[in-house]
Amino acid sequence: MVNWPADARLSAQLHFVLEVDKLKAVLRQVHLQDGSRPENTAEHSWHVCLLAMTLEEHVNEPKPDLNKVIRMLLLHDIVEIDAGDTFAFDQEGYLDKDARETAAARRLFGLLPEDQRATWSALWHEFEEGTSPEARSANALDRLLPLLQNYASGGGSWVRHRVAHSQVLQRITPLKDVSGRLWDFATSMLDRAVEEGMLRDDRPRSQQCTPTR
Amino acid sequence: MVNWPADARLSAQLHFVLEVDKLKAVLRQVHLQDGSRPENTAEHSWHVCLLAMTLEEHVNEPKPDLNKVIRMLLLHDIVEIDAGDTFAFDQEGYLDKDARETAAARRLFGLLPEDQRATWSALWHEFEEGTSPEARSANALDRLLPLLQNYASGGGSWVRHRVAHSQVLQRITPLKDVSGRLWDFATSMLDRAVEEGMLRDDRPRSQQCTPTR
Repeated sequence: MVNWPADARLSAQLHFVLEVDKLKAVLRQVHLQDGSRPENTAEHSWHVCLLAMTLEEHVNEPKPDLNKVIRMLLLHDIVEIDAGDTFAFDQEGYLDKDARETAAARRLFGLLPEDQRATWSALWHEFEEGTSPEARSANALDRLLPLLQNYASGGGSWVRHRVAHSQVLQRITPLKDVSGRLWDFATSMLDRAVEEGMLRDDRPRSQQCTPTR
Repeated sequence: MVNWPADARLSAQLHFVLEVDKLKAVLRQVHLQDGSRPENTAEHSWHVCLLAMTLEEHVNEPKPDLNKVIRMLLLHDIVEIDAGDTFAFDQEGYLDKDARETAAARRLFGLLPEDQRATWSALWHEFEEGTSPEARSANALDRLLPLLQNYASGGGSWVRHRVAHSQVLQRITPLKDVSGRLWDFATSMLDRAVEEGMLRDDRPRSQQCTPTR
């Protein structure tokens, strides 16, 4: 830690700002659209904020406070600095995900002065527990973005990990209560993804399309 | 462009969201704290939003609207997708920076539906022109972050490009009217950076320290 020429409070804040730089080195399963490399969690956090701004109008009434949604999204993944990114379809990784992330939140928010530590930590827990409209909206949009990224790049991590339709459908379920419009769009996109061979087809037989003869 | 199964408005918004993915491939002069690689502009945009949240209390009264500052910071650099990142001390690059970025803003915001295009484009111009307290605050904090990053990593792009004290001081001047507290901190950090050999010493002679014998 640099010995900053500042008072203890500002020094703690600057230490926090520099510590979170490490989120740029946490890699996700999703790749950039140009296929060049895996995405990292810092740039993902920026991207999902822009998604939330862009698609706000499609979120159901009563609208959650977008400003709070954005702050949650800026903060929500910093725990991955210690806990790493857990792939959405990694069942084993999910067993201790909560414990790892809670410890990480304690350490990272613990770098901040006490009042900020309390407020930001509460915001993070609210997101994790989905106890407010903002938390549910942020969570659903965070799940929508990789769907768009995978579909637009021809399957991406779905293809690499042989993911099934039901897995993504379950993952995206929180969107249903957040935005009817985006839910309809996402589910029809998943059907197309199956038909285009990006996802394994494990849909109930009645929903599978019959090729026209 | 993917042929999205959606109406024209949502389709345009999704196209925009995927187009800005390209910001993750725009590289800056600053490197990550671990020295592993240059930082890209998407992750920088996230980082400076967190900086703004963390240091809000140090911004002078009357406080600018932090929510607006954050939205500006999320959007401010997307023009670099077309215009590239112009190094802060690249005099030649600055000659046509405005023209390149204005054309980029026209194309990128032009992907959005008309109402969003107008609002976001106006927000971007407000930032560029510094015509509001939010714009001036966002701009100053955007200049503060690489200072912290360079100093904390032993000089970084200052050392690589043999940057002088006066260049960084001039670059950080907007901070003076935004936060007296952060300005005092930044200027004393620059003096230390000179004394530690990270910046060339071109300070007026009276400000240079005399080694004690």
